[in-house]
Amino acid sequence: MPTYHVEMMEGRTVEQKRRLAEEITRVSVEILGGAPESVDILITDVKRENWATGGKLWSDRS
Amino acid sequence: MPTYHVEMMEGRTVEQKRRLAEEITRVSVEILGGAPESVDILITDVKRENWATGGKLWSDRS
Amino acid sequence: MPTYHVEMMEGRTVEQKRRLAEEITRVSVEILGGAPESVDILITDVKRENWATGGKLWSDRS
Amino acid sequence: MPTYHVEMMEGRTVEQKRRLAEEITRVSVEILGGAPESVDILITDVKRENWATGGKLWSDRS
Amino acid sequence: MPTYHVEMMEGRTVEQKRRLAEEITRVSVEILGGAPESVDILITDVKRENWATGGKLWSDRS
Amino acid sequence: MPTYHVEMMEGRTVEQKRRLAEEITRVSVEILGGAPESVDILITDVKRENWATGGKLWSDRS
Repeated sequence: MPTYHVEMMEGRTVEQKRRLAEEITRVSVEILGGAPESVDILITDVKRENWATGGKLWSDRS
Repeated sequence: MPTYHVEMMEGRTVEQKRRLAEEITRVSVEILGGAPESVDILITDVKRENWATGGKLWSDRS
Repeated sequence: MPTYHVEMMEGRTVEQKRRLAEEITRVSVEILGGAPESVDILITDVKRENWATGGKLWSDRS
Repeated sequence: MPTYHVEMMEGRTVEQKRRLAEEITRVSVEILGGAPESVDILITDVKRENWATGGKLWSDRS
Repeated sequence: MPTYHVEMMEGRTVEQKRRLAEEITRVSVEILGGAPESVDILITDVKRENWATGGKLWSDRS
Repeated sequence: MPTYHVEMMEGRTVEQKRRLAEEITRVSVEILGGAPESVDILITDVKRENWATGGKLWSDRS
């Protein structure tokens, strides 16, 4: 039942998402218990113009 | 003032979203009170490659 | 699989949450399809000092 | 370390996002303390068909 | 209608939240337009044992 | 910069959270790249009366 929301900069491949989902689910079950089927993972691909750190959009960094 | 965030797999029609917004608002006002105008509903259409259950992306399910 | 996050001002009873969970699940299945078991609803009770509208905390409203 | 998630109707320019990121970071550091680099801001552009107020989608308003 | 979610380490005073709500609302209206009444701000006070950076819980930092 | 939000039923120990933070950070860096310091993890402990699956609050399950 644990639910993971992952926000990451856009551009990751499906293969990276696939592995991330497998690994987070494995780690979650190992540490928190429960069945793998109860683990949900939702990924948000964030555009660089939609994420700022230190007051600066990532699309403005060279 | 209650705010609802709905995450659903992409592919739903505007008509489904329209009905869902009407019905959740109606149910919310009926049970929690308050004015309909104070109910906000935000929908996120999630791509199948961005949602995993049981460690498996939905885009990988046949 | 639709997942609902509900943010509401603190103070609602468990009975209100119970009815809300039932009704949102019913409405969701009716409009979006899917099994009731695939519907998750997570409620956040927000303190009045943690919600502002129009620049004013709800704890500051009389 | 404060993290801001901003949901706004789609259609804002990058210049508006840039200024918003600057100003929120400035205000955050001024009031909460901490270094600007520790402030993260994530923006979500919401489609009008994905936001409802008062039970009505914004795409249905004239 | 813009909605701001702010996650911050617990321990901030109500006065800090009050000023933050005022300032973010002011900045939002100035840059994005709209009425102040349409701006919602929700604050989450995060416990130090519930936030990790670099793999380390903040409650474990001296 | 990836940010993970984990919603889990309340009752987990600090040691479980510590290990989860370590492991998710490790897995994230391994698969997505980036520095460990850029990974943030925020945990939400959800009360059983605030989570429903299949229309039923978890506090109502025996």
